[in-house]
Amino acid sequence: MKLLEDRIRRDGRILGGDVLKVDSFLNHQIDVSFLDRIGEEFYRLFSSSGVNKILTIEASGIGISCLTARFFGCPVVFAKKAKTSNLSDDLLVSRVASYTHGNVSDVVVSRDFLTEHDRVLIVDDFLARGCALEGLIDICQQAGAEVVGCGIVIEKQYQGGGDKLRARGIRVESLARIAAMQEGQITFC
Amino acid sequence: MKLLEDRIRRDGRILGGDVLKVDSFLNHQIDVSFLDRIGEEFYRLFSSSGVNKILTIEASGIGISCLTARFFGCPVVFAKKAKTSNLSDDLLVSRVASYTHGNVSDVVVSRDFLTEHDRVLIVDDFLARGCALEGLIDICQQAGAEVVGCGIVIEKQYQGGGDKLRARGIRVESLARIAAMQEGQITFC
Repeated sequence: MKLLEDRIRRDGRILGGDVLKVDSFLNHQIDVSFLDRIGEEFYRLFSSSGVNKILTIEASGIGISCLTARFFGCPVVFAKKAKTSNLSDDLLVSRVASYTHGNVSDVVVSRDFLTEHDRVLIVDDFLARGCALEGLIDICQQAGAEVVGCGIVIEKQYQGGGDKLRARGIRVESLARIAAMQEGQITFC
Repeated sequence: MKLLEDRIRRDGRILGGDVLKVDSFLNHQIDVSFLDRIGEEFYRLFSSSGVNKILTIEASGIGISCLTARFFGCPVVFAKKAKTSNLSDDLLVSRVASYTHGNVSDVVVSRDFLTEHDRVLIVDDFLARGCALEGLIDICQQAGAEVVGCGIVIEKQYQGGGDKLRARGIRVESLARIAAMQEGQITFC
């Protein structure tokens, strides 16, 4: 999506070699009219997939998902990062490693809000190694829900998570795919 | 807002006397078309206030804020709950107590995204004792930004946070105000 690549080139900042900061429009300050265009593009890609629910993970996936869900006319469910081991039977749980934060946490969704009747589009801001997405897919499988695909704003293709999921037969659509970040320069696929 | 009161009566669940669960439409599963109506109501209330930014706090304020911001045509900034003491000079920081979680955490916003040029509407899902709102107001004051008011979905009026803020001269508009919750019954103001 050229609009997105242009915005990343203009406003993205590369820190410490491998961190792409897009917090001026995507995940701290949110440019809502811009994300409306992102949501419209996800709708164009998945409109024939019978999506009846969008699943994401707190916090930065929530805004994108809500703006995308308007086009689909469906609700959003956001998975929570559990802080305690106080998990009840009412919850679907998956353990997710975070390379960014260097820890492991439980990601949880209430069983009330994800069932075998759901056709789920998973939406998130970033895809790198794919750990968070794998956790969300695992949760859908536990619920018996069908994952119709994943809509990602920015994929760091060179970190391999997207291709690993595609090799499993999962449809992953990333609106910007980064092949390399070197010396402050971003190369898109 | 009658639409909201009806929805709370229909789908809200009271747990342990004082906890109102509205996670089927507000803060775990999100009914996006319903929150569109919430956003439209906030716009009706604050449309003449010159709002150019909406400030909220992760995670459950983000969806409401994005859907509200569409009406204002302005960006959203969401404050983050800092997990570490690794805070830089680039951040506006306020210390916030959480009665729900029984802890204290630092709430942070980048200085890049809140300045003396901003006229801020603060949006959140719940207002009880008001600690989170006080933190967000403090952050706006540090930035020199003007708080034009607070738009709250559900205020637990009997916990006093809203009236404390109103006594300070801050405009607080809550779309549903709960006077009491007793024996599973909700009484609105």
